[in-house]
Amino acid sequence: MTVTETKIQTMTGEERMLAACRREPVDATPVWYMRQAGRCLMEYRDLRKKYDILAMQRDPELATEITLMPVRRFGVDAAVLYSDIMIPLDGMGVPFRIEPEIGPIIDAPLRTEADVERLRVVDAEEACPYVFEAIRLIKQELQGKTAVIGFAGSPFTLACYMIEGRPSRDYGKAKSFMYGRPELWHRLMETITEVTVRYLRAQVEAGAQVIQLFDSWVGMLGPEVYAEFVLPYATRIFSEIRTTGTPTIHFGTGTAGLLELMAQAGPDLVSVDWRVPLDVAWERIGAEKGIQGNLDPTVLLAPWEAVEKRAGDVLRRANGRPGHIFNLGHGVLPDTDPDQLAHLAQWVHTVTSAE
Amino acid sequence: MTVTETKIQTMTGEERMLAACRREPVDATPVWYMRQAGRCLMEYRDLRKKYDILAMQRDPELATEITLMPVRRFGVDAAVLYSDIMIPLDGMGVPFRIEPEIGPIIDAPLRTEADVERLRVVDAEEACPYVFEAIRLIKQELQGKTAVIGFAGSPFTLACYMIEGRPSRDYGKAKSFMYGRPELWHRLMETITEVTVRYLRAQVEAGAQVIQLFDSWVGMLGPEVYAEFVLPYATRIFSEIRTTGTPTIHFGTGTAGLLELMAQAGPDLVSVDWRVPLDVAWERIGAEKGIQGNLDPTVLLAPWEAVEKRAGDVLRRANGRPGHIFNLGHGVLPDTDPDQLAHLAQWVHTVTSAE
Repeated sequence: MTVTETKIQTMTGEERMLAACRREPVDATPVWYMRQAGRCLMEYRDLRKKYDILAMQRDPELATEITLMPVRRFGVDAAVLYSDIMIPLDGMGVPFRIEPEIGPIIDAPLRTEADVERLRVVDAEEACPYVFEAIRLIKQELQGKTAVIGFAGSPFTLACYMIEGRPSRDYGKAKSFMYGRPELWHRLMETITEVTVRYLRAQVEAGAQVIQLFDSWVGMLGPEVYAEFVLPYATRIFSEIRTTGTPTIHFGTGTAGLLELMAQAGPDLVSVDWRVPLDVAWERIGAEKGIQGNLDPTVLLAPWEAVEKRAGDVLRRANGRPGHIFNLGHGVLPDTDPDQLAHLAQWVHTVTSAE
Repeated sequence: MTVTETKIQTMTGEERMLAACRREPVDATPVWYMRQAGRCLMEYRDLRKKYDILAMQRDPELATEITLMPVRRFGVDAAVLYSDIMIPLDGMGVPFRIEPEIGPIIDAPLRTEADVERLRVVDAEEACPYVFEAIRLIKQELQGKTAVIGFAGSPFTLACYMIEGRPSRDYGKAKSFMYGRPELWHRLMETITEVTVRYLRAQVEAGAQVIQLFDSWVGMLGPEVYAEFVLPYATRIFSEIRTTGTPTIHFGTGTAGLLELMAQAGPDLVSVDWRVPLDVAWERIGAEKGIQGNLDPTVLLAPWEAVEKRAGDVLRRANGRPGHIFNLGHGVLPDTDPDQLAHLAQWVHTVTSAE
């Protein structure tokens, strides 16, 4: 595969992205990058000098501006709302902050039955109106040229943070809570699931055209434990969003042992990381699902020749089958050169339209 | 399965451990815990107040004392040398330190071809005589009652630390070095492999009866990348140790996508984590290999009922087949109650001898 400059792309990014979600033919493979709006961009780092992360996320104009930066800079087919998976905790009555270089911190993590009982389930528009206002603004700005992706953290990931109180290497507090107090765990998961469904429905109502569920830490679990403690809640979320007609993506990392179950939860696509070759993963999730992925983000820190080689391997394994969205297997690393990301998006478009 | 107090165990821990390594029948399933000598023990924490970690590891008497603590306290069948996988870097001319709560730090990580060329391959007894002196002392003290496990970090894990300079979430520097400068990567791996072979052979000569290769970070790689950049070196190490007649264990975590290749590298046993059910993992690595694992260490932070349930699941999946060594899927977490570990070792011995 070599870059051919003369091929004509006939679809907008939005059309390309939504067609891939329906596993329909596309003029070129759609591309976006997880964490595309963030620290790899100088224009974002400039804003960060002036504003706190959560202040930017809670300001619809700023969130819109940041969401659109990578669309302009990289030529990706989808904009993903600049926001944090922790945002719904505001409405639940669990205060948190984002500590630079560390991540989310909850000063009063959940420990007792009373802590779980105390969680609130409120109307999403009331709890965090700025999220939906930002989606409406982004939608207006994009004028149908680029798809808008909404998202939420999975109940498992949010429960881990809520119990642990901060990012952890092993989530010992959260997992021992799950193993040792299964009934209370299930009550917690039910509450978070209800909040998540309301939050995602409100995003769809505001204009989100694709919904991704970020089950970032689920790769810590074996399949039986996943099936018992997590799967029922992911299943409920996908089934509720399905009634809106909006396509869904189920994301996780380190999921080489869980792919079948993640597909069984009911998304339209499964997002896989680089630990499983794309064709092997697609075989396992089944041809009736689409697939997103799966370039190792660390490849982008190497020279372009290495990027082209590894990205070419991803495309060869996708083999032009409808239903592939090109992405990384996890978020863009902060040290990534934005020019590599722009070049890669263009390259994927060109070589896949030349096929 | 319930605890039956009356069963008689007829083998010593050493006999039990070595029989399991040869996949021969045992009177009870052997047990040891990764990181059993460490922060979960008050007697260790008391020593830590007086000594630096590396000072303790470089003192054969102290290393022996710490190595024997969990043997006395938990009744495990194997002692694993209290040492760090970074120790061989001393002789290679790569100074490092261990930072509490962080891990190994190398102030001058490898960056250039000259850095790789400069690495030294020296005689192991000359580079770190204290390691082999400690093994000889431990062997004497144990008097054939408990097996002695020697170990090394895998070349991949050591290369990651040497390039990255410190523990990292994604090892972006190390992996982009590997992707972007494959020839230099292979030269580095060859050098580390040569050092590792000498280091492990010297441990066997000093009295180590089982050798475990810790490929702690290998779960970051997909199978093709593993096969290209790591597998040849693991294969060489196992093949060299095989000539000594000493059984070998290949350890990794997050290896649900790599188990067949890790078995193909040539160890006698593969150590698997909790992300793959033990019977599924054993099926994949093949009946001609033994298996070690695979309780989730976070389970031990939950009440005993949860431990018994999850450990019972591991034993049910092992189904009494010769060649199973009971262990955690990764190291003991610092907050673990030592009484749980002692009770678990006794429980595993009792229920498996009652079968």
